[in-house]
Amino acid sequence: MTQHLLRAASTRFYKMFAQLDLEGMGELWAHSVPVSCVHPGWDLVLGREAVMESWRAIFSGTSELSFETEEVQITAGSDMGWVVSRELLRTTVQGMPVENTLTAINTFVLEQGVWRIAHHHAAPLLAGRPRSVRPPETTLH
Amino acid sequence: MTQHLLRAASTRFYKMFAQLDLEGMGELWAHSVPVSCVHPGWDLVLGREAVMESWRAIFSGTSELSFETEEVQITAGSDMGWVVSRELLRTTVQGMPVENTLTAINTFVLEQGVWRIAHHHAAPLLAGRPRSVRPPETTLH
Repeated sequence: MTQHLLRAASTRFYKMFAQLDLEGMGELWAHSVPVSCVHPGWDLVLGREAVMESWRAIFSGTSELSFETEEVQITAGSDMGWVVSRELLRTTVQGMPVENTLTAINTFVLEQGVWRIAHHHAAPLLAGRPRSVRPPETTLH
Repeated sequence: MTQHLLRAASTRFYKMFAQLDLEGMGELWAHSVPVSCVHPGWDLVLGREAVMESWRAIFSGTSELSFETEEVQITAGSDMGWVVSRELLRTTVQGMPVENTLTAINTFVLEQGVWRIAHHHAAPLLAGRPRSVRPPETTLH
């Protein structure tokens, strides 16, 4: 049951993201814990104000966006949990369609009956890195 | 108090990582929930067997490694929590020293008094991406 609620919270997050809905996005973030975000390739964005500023910047530079997400693992506790996902993101850059696959984890806390997001970390698959387990020998990490 | 324990669990994780200690690493991972990992640029690595195989592959391709980590946000519940960190990783690639800064989140669950890791997601800062909030207009996400 809680897994179902976490999946719904994750879906809401990607819906607000795809709609570039800054106000709707703001309503999804937690108040009871410090929040943070890692956008692909960015340094940590820490705290509500900086997180919302990051969404404002991203939304203002984006005109069209859609997601297909696959929630691969949902780990639910009584008042905390996380969803590990694959994101297939489609957008246009200078009129050209672009499609990217990313990995993501979103963590959530339960606040007065509502699951709110506390951390979002999304990262692109890098060209030349394996989709399977075996890394190249120069893998640093 | 719990924050202190989560910080210690995070420190143990990076210690086993830097020591390339596969057995020690195996002892840190949770049994009560499905585990997963995102190494920089990789696709999702899902489940204990694949996660341990990924560490085996990384450790076998690495001869020297050290971390400085900064635990920037620690969010602790009664039996779940997460640590958001910056990792400064030093290694050598073909005899040359290499230094990388990464962002990471590690999630933990409490199992019979021991905080065990359930998910590790580390991603490199990409060249040209801001350390501050303002993204380039072509940011896709």
